[in-house]
Amino acid sequence: MRYWLVGYDIADMRRLQRVGRFMEDYGQRLQYSVFLCRLEPQEMQRMRRRLRRLLNLKEDRVFLLPLCRECFHRMEQLGRPLSLQIDQDYWIL
Amino acid sequence: MRYWLVGYDIADMRRLQRVGRFMEDYGQRLQYSVFLCRLEPQEMQRMRRRLRRLLNLKEDRVFLLPLCRECFHRMEQLGRPLSLQIDQDYWIL
Repeated sequence: MRYWLVGYDIADMRRLQRVGRFMEDYGQRLQYSVFLCRLEPQEMQRMRRRLRRLLNLKEDRVFLLPLCRECFHRMEQLGRPLSLQIDQDYWIL
Repeated sequence: MRYWLVGYDIADMRRLQRVGRFMEDYGQRLQYSVFLCRLEPQEMQRMRRRLRRLLNLKEDRVFLLPLCRECFHRMEQLGRPLSLQIDQDYWIL
């Protein structure tokens, strides 16, 4: 199980909404177009494959960033706090 | 020197543009509201302090995520590729 940060710039409004709804099945919305996902490797593969099909690969851009515990631990927030839905065991170093 | 991913949701359009211009002095725009920054600790402190002053802390939200080399290495992209301005030495594990 690993945490992933998935962020996207989608050129088309309808596609953007579709990707947002799609991502809500896989993780927590950290920001409008950034999600925090906690996925098993096979889930990640399936998500990647299905996400790719939603995109216009010439116009849209997505980054998928795996987070080790240490980086995850060091994430900081400014402003309106967001309570991250995380597992306690991920916090044990 | 460390890589940081900085992403933000800013509630006000003018503030959003101001934060975008501010962040362009500190890193590369990965997406509309996500920047990849490579900063020394003191630079990061100064950036965090100045960024905080630009925000409405009740309305806006920023995450600041440090990236270790391993997480950085595993970053994936889908769609329109972005050439990351990175140092070769950061790639040596």
